[in-house]
Amino acid sequence: METTPARERAAEREHDRERDADRAALAERAARLDASDPLAPVRDLFTLPGGDGGDSGGPGGGIDAVYLDGNSLGALPTHLPERLRDVVTRQWGSLGIRSWGESGWWTAPERVGDRIAPLVGAGPGTVVVSDSTSVNVFKALVAGTRLVAQDRDEIVVDATTFPTDGYIAESAARLTGKRLVPVDPADVPRAVGPRTAVALVNHVDFRTGRLHDLPGITAAVHEAGAIAAWDLCHSAGALPVGLAEHGVDLAFGCTYKFLNGGPGAPAFIYVAERHQGRFDSPLPGWNSHADPFAMSSAYAAGEGAVRGRVGTPDILSLLAVDAALDVWDHEAVTVAAVRDKSLALTDFFLDCVAAYAPPGRVASLTPAAHAERGSQVALRCAEAPDVMEALIARGVVGDLRRPDILRFGFTPLYVGFAHAERAARVLAGVLAEVGA
Amino acid sequence: METTPARERAAEREHDRERDADRAALAERAARLDASDPLAPVRDLFTLPGGDGGDSGGPGGGIDAVYLDGNSLGALPTHLPERLRDVVTRQWGSLGIRSWGESGWWTAPERVGDRIAPLVGAGPGTVVVSDSTSVNVFKALVAGTRLVAQDRDEIVVDATTFPTDGYIAESAARLTGKRLVPVDPADVPRAVGPRTAVALVNHVDFRTGRLHDLPGITAAVHEAGAIAAWDLCHSAGALPVGLAEHGVDLAFGCTYKFLNGGPGAPAFIYVAERHQGRFDSPLPGWNSHADPFAMSSAYAAGEGAVRGRVGTPDILSLLAVDAALDVWDHEAVTVAAVRDKSLALTDFFLDCVAAYAPPGRVASLTPAAHAERGSQVALRCAEAPDVMEALIARGVVGDLRRPDILRFGFTPLYVGFAHAERAARVLAGVLAEVGA
Repeated sequence: METTPARERAAEREHDRERDADRAALAERAARLDASDPLAPVRDLFTLPGGDGGDSGGPGGGIDAVYLDGNSLGALPTHLPERLRDVVTRQWGSLGIRSWGESGWWTAPERVGDRIAPLVGAGPGTVVVSDSTSVNVFKALVAGTRLVAQDRDEIVVDATTFPTDGYIAESAARLTGKRLVPVDPADVPRAVGPRTAVALVNHVDFRTGRLHDLPGITAAVHEAGAIAAWDLCHSAGALPVGLAEHGVDLAFGCTYKFLNGGPGAPAFIYVAERHQGRFDSPLPGWNSHADPFAMSSAYAAGEGAVRGRVGTPDILSLLAVDAALDVWDHEAVTVAAVRDKSLALTDFFLDCVAAYAPPGRVASLTPAAHAERGSQVALRCAEAPDVMEALIARGVVGDLRRPDILRFGFTPLYVGFAHAERAARVLAGVLAEVGA
Repeated sequence: METTPARERAAEREHDRERDADRAALAERAARLDASDPLAPVRDLFTLPGGDGGDSGGPGGGIDAVYLDGNSLGALPTHLPERLRDVVTRQWGSLGIRSWGESGWWTAPERVGDRIAPLVGAGPGTVVVSDSTSVNVFKALVAGTRLVAQDRDEIVVDATTFPTDGYIAESAARLTGKRLVPVDPADVPRAVGPRTAVALVNHVDFRTGRLHDLPGITAAVHEAGAIAAWDLCHSAGALPVGLAEHGVDLAFGCTYKFLNGGPGAPAFIYVAERHQGRFDSPLPGWNSHADPFAMSSAYAAGEGAVRGRVGTPDILSLLAVDAALDVWDHEAVTVAAVRDKSLALTDFFLDCVAAYAPPGRVASLTPAAHAERGSQVALRCAEAPDVMEALIARGVVGDLRRPDILRFGFTPLYVGFAHAERAARVLAGVLAEVGA
């Protein structure tokens, strides 16, 4: 009869064998998935941040790092610096003000908006790039209240939304004399009614990665006679949105996550064609005027997407977004292909985490159902701050949402299955060391 | 006795001699002024737009062109492209999100604001760079109305201001339930009273170049118990503003004119220290939160200049502004030196125009008194559109304000006296051809 220590050693050996078999199987599955990935060649279009202090940057620099923070800051398209250099040195430096016409600066907000439109299922002339997401929340909410009867005195807002949306909604409610009604997104259909002016929902929960039911919620908001406004920060460039198909009224989102436009790049705003003529912006800057260069003291709103503009467009950042969008011209890159790979990647990552991570240490907050999942995986972990710090030190770059969420964004354009496997493996190693 | 034609020929010869003598004298005066100009070496820090299609760009490219449109778009500081390349390739490309801390991205709006502060006579911690001028007009006006008793129900606005200020003021008035009172800047002291909440004045008239009396108007606004808000777009970097000295409450301005920050670069907003604790922004985005990364659903305003922020800062454009401000670190560059040269340049240009231009064809709208002059010369001319087109074709780049204003901006950092003389000479030649 074996002694207890001997039985423990046997169990340990068995566990090691299983783990090694798991690893081999998962590594093989990763290799197979990467080999058949139609988006694999697209990765060469990006310069990925290194996890080791940045010295490994450059086209080949991402080999050792796994960048899972594209849902915070998209990676650099490799051709972008040269494009921006031309904007700075030739367009600004040599042509100067002539570039407002000759280099297409003046109309760039609409032109770049028209490149984003198909990625969110919007028609041409309905999207403009201007200001920050927060400023666009304000435009959408105040203008939204002006599209309905004034006795509608409530603004319903996603209580789980990214905080800035809630802060700005509160300000919009205060300035328009409406009452703010924060509710869980799932409860929006029950919360909207004859008093609702606008309902604002975030398409993907920034903490959990949960994808909300845009068609269903929009239909319920319309049923109540209200305006549906959507925050697309975590869905634009990550999954099909279908703004026109689902009849969304107003929407906005950033360009620096899945659209890779650069840190703090200007955001976009969508106004459905049927509302454009009555879109009454609370920020009617001269760029939204029907004839800006008449310099008239009387305001007259321009026609179409231009009504979403305010001041002079931020050309350097805006044309960086323009350059970043070139990636979507690659023949393999479609929103459908991106979505397919995103779901496969997050499925696979969850499988790897389940296989590798010590039991009970992390729990996924991201829904298992594809229809409810954005392009990230959020893991609850008691030691999240220490774990994320250790992960980043080992070249697996995700981010932390205080107090206890490890967030891993999967950008299918430059993240592969081997990265997902490696990230889970490094995570398991870190968990074994931190707080064990 | 001479025949009439002979007398005419003699008069013509006399006129030609006078003109040639004038030219020689003015060219000599230009050479003397350039030789003793302490800012002359600073011009080498800029790449000036060419007037011939941009091919003459580059450090030596401005020799044949005269760039008098720095009050619309400042010229490119030559070192800026390399700085921006580093921001893009190393900070974004290699470091990625780590740059929010390691490269100082998160605090850049305050840091760059602190570099602008001394140029407008403001103390540290009172200026932040964020959003467009138009958006900052909105913040200042709405927050301004919240700094005074709510029975003050009027917003007094400069009726001659750049249009966007008026459009936004109208929106701010509508949302806060105030009445908009547009008046000529000179009438502001008489227009303000116990009903005035805020008075908004543009420091320099964008059409005429008239400099308004900031100390006097501010004092009158304060006498009435109201808030004084100033638009510094055409004075920041061009002349002493003295925000703190004159007790200005709120101010804002762009960075792409005399601060050379690049096309559409983010604007700045100033909140006097005594108001910061009560500055209640209508755009309380997450970047103005006391603890943004707590991601709290309850808004709590941060302390100090940060309250002027809204969404994620536009890093590429913001750090271009940061680089552009390096020019002010040059030992010769002070606001006083810039102002001295600006007045000398505009005086000299007006002298040259008076000497060269055919009589009665142009009339200066810019005040002769130094205390009333910004850093531009505006000439009324019936054929202004054709004249400006011809000027630009001949390498003298000013701009047109419809219907009949030729606008010439003088940026002392890169415009010299010989440029002024040449611009006036080319203008005279164009006037002789166009509409003569």
